[in-house]
Amino acid sequence: MPKHRTPPQFTLQELADFLAADAPVTELRGDAGAVIRRLNTLSAATAGDLTFLASKAYRRQLAGNEASAVILSPADAEGYAGNVLVHPNPYLAFARLSALFETRPQPGGGVHPTAVVDASASLGADVSIGPHTVIGAGVVIGAGTEIGAGCHIGADSEIGAGGLLHAGVTLYHGVSIGCRVVIHSGAVIGADGFGFANEGGRWVKIHQIGGVEIGDDVEIGAATTIDRGALGNTVIGNNVIIDNLVQIAHNVRIGDHSALAGCAAIAGSTVIGRYCVLAGGAGLVGHIELCDRVTVTARSMITRSIDKPGTYSSGTPFEDNAAWKRNAVRFSQLDKLARRLGNLEKQQSQDKEEKR
Amino acid sequence: MPKHRTPPQFTLQELADFLAADAPVTELRGDAGAVIRRLNTLSAATAGDLTFLASKAYRRQLAGNEASAVILSPADAEGYAGNVLVHPNPYLAFARLSALFETRPQPGGGVHPTAVVDASASLGADVSIGPHTVIGAGVVIGAGTEIGAGCHIGADSEIGAGGLLHAGVTLYHGVSIGCRVVIHSGAVIGADGFGFANEGGRWVKIHQIGGVEIGDDVEIGAATTIDRGALGNTVIGNNVIIDNLVQIAHNVRIGDHSALAGCAAIAGSTVIGRYCVLAGGAGLVGHIELCDRVTVTARSMITRSIDKPGTYSSGTPFEDNAAWKRNAVRFSQLDKLARRLGNLEKQQSQDKEEKR
Amino acid sequence: MPKHRTPPQFTLQELADFLAADAPVTELRGDAGAVIRRLNTLSAATAGDLTFLASKAYRRQLAGNEASAVILSPADAEGYAGNVLVHPNPYLAFARLSALFETRPQPGGGVHPTAVVDASASLGADVSIGPHTVIGAGVVIGAGTEIGAGCHIGADSEIGAGGLLHAGVTLYHGVSIGCRVVIHSGAVIGADGFGFANEGGRWVKIHQIGGVEIGDDVEIGAATTIDRGALGNTVIGNNVIIDNLVQIAHNVRIGDHSALAGCAAIAGSTVIGRYCVLAGGAGLVGHIELCDRVTVTARSMITRSIDKPGTYSSGTPFEDNAAWKRNAVRFSQLDKLARRLGNLEKQQSQDKEEKR
Repeated sequence: MPKHRTPPQFTLQELADFLAADAPVTELRGDAGAVIRRLNTLSAATAGDLTFLASKAYRRQLAGNEASAVILSPADAEGYAGNVLVHPNPYLAFARLSALFETRPQPGGGVHPTAVVDASASLGADVSIGPHTVIGAGVVIGAGTEIGAGCHIGADSEIGAGGLLHAGVTLYHGVSIGCRVVIHSGAVIGADGFGFANEGGRWVKIHQIGGVEIGDDVEIGAATTIDRGALGNTVIGNNVIIDNLVQIAHNVRIGDHSALAGCAAIAGSTVIGRYCVLAGGAGLVGHIELCDRVTVTARSMITRSIDKPGTYSSGTPFEDNAAWKRNAVRFSQLDKLARRLGNLEKQQSQDKEEKR
Repeated sequence: MPKHRTPPQFTLQELADFLAADAPVTELRGDAGAVIRRLNTLSAATAGDLTFLASKAYRRQLAGNEASAVILSPADAEGYAGNVLVHPNPYLAFARLSALFETRPQPGGGVHPTAVVDASASLGADVSIGPHTVIGAGVVIGAGTEIGAGCHIGADSEIGAGGLLHAGVTLYHGVSIGCRVVIHSGAVIGADGFGFANEGGRWVKIHQIGGVEIGDDVEIGAATTIDRGALGNTVIGNNVIIDNLVQIAHNVRIGDHSALAGCAAIAGSTVIGRYCVLAGGAGLVGHIELCDRVTVTARSMITRSIDKPGTYSSGTPFEDNAAWKRNAVRFSQLDKLARRLGNLEKQQSQDKEEKR
Repeated sequence: MPKHRTPPQFTLQELADFLAADAPVTELRGDAGAVIRRLNTLSAATAGDLTFLASKAYRRQLAGNEASAVILSPADAEGYAGNVLVHPNPYLAFARLSALFETRPQPGGGVHPTAVVDASASLGADVSIGPHTVIGAGVVIGAGTEIGAGCHIGADSEIGAGGLLHAGVTLYHGVSIGCRVVIHSGAVIGADGFGFANEGGRWVKIHQIGGVEIGDDVEIGAATTIDRGALGNTVIGNNVIIDNLVQIAHNVRIGDHSALAGCAAIAGSTVIGRYCVLAGGAGLVGHIELCDRVTVTARSMITRSIDKPGTYSSGTPFEDNAAWKRNAVRFSQLDKLARRLGNLEKQQSQDKEEKR
């Protein structure tokens, strides 16, 4: 059973030292012994809180804030009288420090007696397996990885070191997961891709005999589904971040450092470059390719390959329903309207001709 | 293991008495001893069935129906010869009575021997815990709550009295659930919000150290995900109803009595008022606010705050694919078409000027 | 625990014989003893691989391919010098053969000791029940069906013969599943439909007392939800194929041989005919009816009944964000633009009249 963490408590100096390990430019101004017990937003922070200013939009909240210390950029820190951690990227500093304030209980450690672990599975040092979890034949789990309660890890799957599978994650057989990967509850990795041949109207299943490869430092959200390849693998690169309820079909390939927000969906065999961002609900049809650094805005649908970095959108603006109805009905007349416009233009130039 | 319920059977008088507890205006006309064994639709009802007329669209089905009794509004009941429960809101009366005909088996009661319940968890009277369910440290569960098979309740979470978690629900740690809340299978409450800082192209996780607060009388559908807050809580008000596969991101707040239909999605920190309705697949971007009594139609996307109650929509009407293609290609020319129209108008007023 | 399958190995003659069982027109040309160990794509195939040519788009890859054999149509086989299985529908032949190369481990067989099976459940011959699975009272499971780990089968549900439920599938009570049905992890069948009456702003639950009926030869994807009926059943016909994260609301009816791709969503009481295709993310509002052989393109939303077979679409094309913004703002002016166009036309005909 999880043990409870002691409530965290740090001096400002300790936090500065922690940050300095990665980003030595951190500078502490003010009371190095100030005690920090919580992270908080600028507007809600009180004594004992560390907060941060990451956007100019909130700058007016800086004056009069009640936090014990603030993470500020060098420019924002100028003239600020309170305790400060000066950092070139306050939001990043906040992200790093957030790890110290994680509230998730530590795992009990070891294999829970109710877990069912195949004798041929190989568990690294300090692997933790939760209650009622099932680990199949030939599974390999790297050192320090924590598998929560009620997970199912199919035969011959591999999970790298330092990973975390929350309760109720399912990996099918033959799924390969890198190091330091976090997978949230309800995610399903390696289910069959949606492949069927049609025989005179009847669907005949194409058995999906590829696998799934997931890189290092990936995060996968709750109830997200990543299907196994039909032939060959579905591939998720390193440091790809994926939100909840995302659908990734068979043989999709996603480049390193790309981000997929909630409810994004990618159809089969589509290839996404590196540093791409799919905003919430963005959709990509199958068998297309997006180059590096493509951003798709929320709910937009991409129907052709894109070979130029940039931001892409589809859809219409929202309006009150009555106005929308008037305009939407015109959408179905658009081609006719355009032709009528063309006719008017033609008529007008004829009129001009006649006048000469 | 669940016990089977005896098939239900009531006299019409018993049903009238049940309704009268809440709505004393219920009036029984006809045979008070008529035996009711099932609820059914007006068109399918036969002997032993109670049915209802809730919409004028079905009024013609009233004559000749074969039900043993009908719930009717006072107006519809006038002149109707059969057995009637007269109620000002027949659909509401039907909803109330539906509880008596629930087919779900009663839980076995108590803690199933295969459940893993932390010694520090506190279970109220008549709590039922299903097989293979895992209850973490410090969890508090209110009286009469039923937790189905294979659920995972994270440490320090609380569930109020009279609740029902169907099989396979996951609550992370620190999730607070009110009384009489129903959560369906596959729902995940309290997974990490999708928060990452970016360091030169590399995503760095922001640990999500807030929680989730869910009010009383809430229903949450299958495979729906509600993320924990980054700082501070994600908050679902009282009597909010949420359908399947809905995504609610970190720090979203939803006001009392709002309804979210299937596949609706709300991005981070967005605030929704009371009595709002998101129809199926409606989407809201992050960091906006909807006032009370806003309805968003199916699949519409809201990209700015709304401060006026009403109904809002986006999207285009469907058409047969050939017509749609002709019109859709014009969408990409819309701005040019509008400018051409403006030019024509300018030309025309010049022509008029010249004529004078 | 699952046993590992021996890596597959067949002679070309064996594969031809396997295909001939269903489609006797298969003809083998070349080396009948050629050894096939894998299926692969035309471009990636090497020695030991069988591949296929199913689309003219890949025809140029045929020359110079390194596969040990290729499945070709009679036309494509003409003049091809390598080993060939000639089949009128190479993609179908590939689908059939894929079953021989399935990588999924065989189940251990029997009921795992950690499974909780109600004494009143009835299991057919050779049924396999995985670890930590819970089978409710009165459940009937047909011969040869495999239920994976951590599944929950509600009371009085029935599953036909030859089926496969992957790990973590949930069936509520009273769900009826046909023969040879495959259901993927995280799918939830029979949760309550989203039915509520409203009493002065307050939602009152309508207990969902119908069930779910699913035909034979159906496949249901990961994390897909199919709700039970309010009154009467939700019905999925024979040989319907359903991808991941699909939402099927209460009392929907889907005709035989229809296909629903990922993230499709169907609101309550809608009826879909036979041989329909909903592409990824297609949405249907409730209480409408689609006739046989309707195809809805990706992300399109259908808001009225369709009584004519064909392909239907909604939405707008994607563009780079700057262009899209210019056009999208015009969408909100469409009705005004159309009226201005009408005025211009009126003016122009008046001008013409005057000229006469």
